[in-house]
This record gives sequence, C-alpha cells and structure tokens, in this order.
Amino acid sequence: MTNPGVSQPPVSSERESEALRVSLKERAVAIEAMLGRLIPQTKGAEARLMDAMRYATLGGGKRLRGYLVAEVASLFSSNADVDEGGAYRAAASVEMLHAYSLVHDDLPAMDDDDLRRGQPSTHRKFDEATAILAGDALQTRAFEVLAEIDTHPDAAVRLDLVLALAQASGAAGMVGGQMIDMEGEGRALSLAEVSHLHALKTGCLIRFSAEAGAILGRANPGQRRQIVAYGRDIGAAFQIADDVLDATASAEELGKTAGKDLAAEKSTFVALLGIEGARSQAETLAQRACDALHIFGDKAERLRDLARYVVERRS
Amino acid sequence: MTNPGVSQPPVSSERESEALRVSLKERAVAIEAMLGRLIPQTKGAEARLMDAMRYATLGGGKRLRGYLVAEVASLFSSNADVDEGGAYRAAASVEMLHAYSLVHDDLPAMDDDDLRRGQPSTHRKFDEATAILAGDALQTRAFEVLAEIDTHPDAAVRLDLVLALAQASGAAGMVGGQMIDMEGEGRALSLAEVSHLHALKTGCLIRFSAEAGAILGRANPGQRRQIVAYGRDIGAAFQIADDVLDATASAEELGKTAGKDLAAEKSTFVALLGIEGARSQAETLAQRACDALHIFGDKAERLRDLARYVVERRS
Repeated sequence: MTNPGVSQPPVSSERESEALRVSLKERAVAIEAMLGRLIPQTKGAEARLMDAMRYATLGGGKRLRGYLVAEVASLFSSNADVDEGGAYRAAASVEMLHAYSLVHDDLPAMDDDDLRRGQPSTHRKFDEATAILAGDALQTRAFEVLAEIDTHPDAAVRLDLVLALAQASGAAGMVGGQMIDMEGEGRALSLAEVSHLHALKTGCLIRFSAEAGAILGRANPGQRRQIVAYGRDIGAAFQIADDVLDATASAEELGKTAGKDLAAEKSTFVALLGIEGARSQAETLAQRACDALHIFGDKAERLRDLARYVVERRS
Repeated sequence: MTNPGVSQPPVSSERESEALRVSLKERAVAIEAMLGRLIPQTKGAEARLMDAMRYATLGGGKRLRGYLVAEVASLFSSNADVDEGGAYRAAASVEMLHAYSLVHDDLPAMDDDDLRRGQPSTHRKFDEATAILAGDALQTRAFEVLAEIDTHPDAAVRLDLVLALAQASGAAGMVGGQMIDMEGEGRALSLAEVSHLHALKTGCLIRFSAEAGAILGRANPGQRRQIVAYGRDIGAAFQIADDVLDATASAEELGKTAGKDLAAEKSTFVALLGIEGARSQAETLAQRACDALHIFGDKAERLRDLARYVVERRS
C-alpha cells in the first residue's frame, strides 16, 4: 500500500517483483506486435531495408522505454480520450528511435560492436551501408508514427509528442550525448561531465518516454512535472546501474561484450565512484524517482517497482 | 503573359532567366540566414557536432528545395495566415533533411565521396563518427523545426508538414531510393526501375518541397494536387538533367567528381536513353510541370522559370 506524500522504501517484495515481471512481459508482447505491424515485411527492391529495420527493432529486449510510455499513459486512463492503441504506437515510436541509435552506435566508425543482445549487430548481419540507411529510416519512421497516431483526436497532442521526441533525441539530447561520449574517450572526465554526458546520451530518451505517457494522458502541468522528474531520475539510475553491470557481469549475462568501457578507457561512474559508491548513488536516484510519484498513490506502484528493478537488474 | 489552360512553350526569355536568377539569389540568402540561426554555433562539448552540422548545411548550393517551399507558399500570400518567416523555417527544414542525406550518402560505406560542392565532404573535413552523428542530428532538427513553426497558428498544419516530410524521406521515399540505388549497382536496371529509383531517391523530397508550400498556404485540394504534380515532374526532370550533366560536364563545373555514375556502373537515364534522348525526356517533364501550374496564372511565372532552369542548368 502506498501512502501519498511519504517516502517509500526501495525494497521490492516478492509479490511486487512478480507483478512487474508480468506487466513488463505483457506490455513487451504488445509493443513487439505493434512494431511488427508498423514495420511490415515487403517484397521488391526495398525489402532488404525493411528486413534490416525489422532485424534491428524486433526480437526482444526489455522494452523499458516503451513500457514507460504505456505504463505512464495508463495512470491517466480515467481521461476518456487516452487510447491504449495510441499509447502502444508512441511506445513503438520510442523503441524505433532507440533502435536507430543502437544501429548507428554499433557501426565500425562509432563503437565498432559486433554483438547486440547476443546477436550480430545490424551492420554485421547485413552490411554497413544497409545499417546506416536502416538507422536513418527508423528515425524517420519514429517521427512518422507519432505524427499519425490517428486514434488521438487532438493534433496539438501529437505535435507535442513530435517536438518532445526531437528535443530529447537531437543535438541537444541523445545525439549530443553520443558526440560528447566519442570526444571524451581516452580523457579523464569529471563526475559532473560523466553525469551530463549520460543525462543526454541515455537520460533524455528515458525521460521522454515517461513524458510521452503524460502527454498522451493530458496530464496537468503539475502531474507532468512529477512524471518528468521520475523519468529523469530513473534514466540516471539506469545508466549508473549499466556501468556497474559492465564492470561486474559476464558477456554471457549481458549478451554483449563486457568490460568494453574499461578497454575503451571510458570515464564511468564505477571508475569515479567505485562499485559500491555507484550502486549507492543508483539506489538514491531510484528512491527519489519513487518519491516523485507520490501524487499518484497506488496507481503508480508498477512504476515504483520499475525504478527499483532498474538498479537491481542483473542484465 | 500566361494564358491559363494553354500549354506554355519551355523557352525562357532573357528577362525571365534574370528574374529567376534574382529570385533564387534572394531566397537563398534568406534560407542561409535562417539555417545559420536554427543551427547556432555553440561552445562546450557539443561544439564539434554543431560545427559539423553547420559545415554540412551552410555555405551555399542553389537551395532548390528551399526555394520551392518559399516560392510555392508565396502563391498563396493572399491567405492572411501565410507567414513568410514560417515558409523560410520550412525551407530550412527541407534543406537540413537534404543535407543529412548528402552527409550519409558521401560516407565510405556508401558512395565514398571525398568532395561535395568542391569542398571536402563532411567525413573528410571532420571524421566518420562525427559525420554519422551530424547527419542523424540534422534529420532530427528538420522535424523539430517543422514542429515548432510557432508563427503558424494551426497545429494541424504543422503536423501535416511533419507527416509529409516523414513519408517523403523514409523507407518508402528517399532512404528507400538510396537502398535501391545501392542494391542496383553493377546490375542493369530497366527504364522503369531507374525511374522508380529516382522518383524515391530525389523526387520525393523535391515533390515534398513544393507540397510544403501548398500546406503552409492552406491550398485547397485541387490546388494542392496541381502543386504536387508540378513538384513530381520537376523532381524527375531534375534527376534526368543531373545524369546528363554527370555524363557531359567536367568536375570543375560540377564541384564534385564527374563521370562517377559510369565508373560505378550505375544504370542512368543517359545509359538507357542516350544523351539526346535523356535531354528530350527532361524537357517534356519540365513542360508538363509548367502546364500543371496553369490554374495559378501569372503568379506562378517564377516556378515555370524554375522548371525550365532545372533542365537547362550547367552545374
């Protein structure tokens, strides 16, 4: 039971973990189905491009970002015009945007990564040119899908989504963070610099995912502010936990090359804070994320579970 | 003088050429200024990304696409809410989208081109990773700029622009055409295949540019249809003329490597139709483009000049 206004302990009971597990699974299945419909297989000359887009997008992952869109939108389900189909379209959009960033990030000129979720990365499965174009087309499709959520009656809502996604993912957001990341390799960054880098590189899109649910739900400004604060904190917690995992987990557990950050001489939270210091920082952020949801009471319990899960996960 | 409904000869008088030259120059200056404002120089860690975006976008070119947006929008200037600043924002957006496609097209894994308008291509001036990210961020910014044309009162208009740009530039448009182009290298394509390829690769974005002007101008469905027909035909004429130029002009005139199509064993209109056959086809399309504008009378004279210019240009 949640008592609004009172700080919740970040301890997850067995029941809560199981409820989140079921909820994540259900929504991941719905998001996957939506992605498959929005990026259909085609015949003819464009088939290879669509195949690469499907390869990069389908086939799993936790769908953390898409989950946030759909779960936050469901907080506002008493608003008559919040449509679940629209929420899953927006969820698919953010997953496409995320997938495009991974495809380009894995390219030889970027991180040069051969594996992604234990499978060949897109440029290894296809070729570099196809991977560049598939990433480009996934970005375009992400904006197209948001713009055409025709189940939503209000053009202003869809425009708000498009604008928020552009701001979160462009030069002042995700791509700006990737650039800073490339530039920072081999150079010691301060904690402030690493925090800024990740706030842009991964934080902005996770924050957007939560915000998109609030936009779809026509949250009032106060509600939207709380959701954005939640999204920002779990985004930061997620990245710190990722650094901890990279330093502690095996490649088998991660489904990607482990210890890469160290090999690339990247400045990480673990390098700056130590493993225990980083863990502690992630837990503090997860706690603050939970606290931000107090105005939503019990309805936000899955989102609190998610904040705890983000820092406790093992892959 | 234009007699609506009667086919206009594609002969450009000296006066018309001069009027177009002045109009192109004026609008190019305004578009360049808008681009400079929309992609500002920054300090700090993101500076290199913004520098690469500016390098790829600023510094000239004919601004054919941006010109189309602004000139078509001006056809509807009697509609009270057509705002010139909004038209130049949309013009800058399509130029950013075009610039992103060139940056990625020039990459080693794609066309591997060292020169663009006589200058080092973006990955040569910076590096490959920066070029990939700058292209990505330019695409994002193009959508962002359309979504935030705040001088336009109606969200539905901006949403229409976003959707039309996404459809023109994604897997079923420009990027799809690039994929077909990559796949077709070293293989003989039919005239129908080459036409389809270019309708997607370059045609869709030129067609969108004209259509964007009509959307901003709140054209009625009949007007919009004529503008789209015009845009489609000059897009096709432009590409055929480009093939002719590649086969006949020197690298110095083009500001890029000449004869590349032949070297890459690409199927071109020139290879399929011969130089004279290709020229004649381009002129027929330019004529049809002019005819599509008959409902606009004298107001569309610059757009007719442009159709003639597109097939007569020497660079």
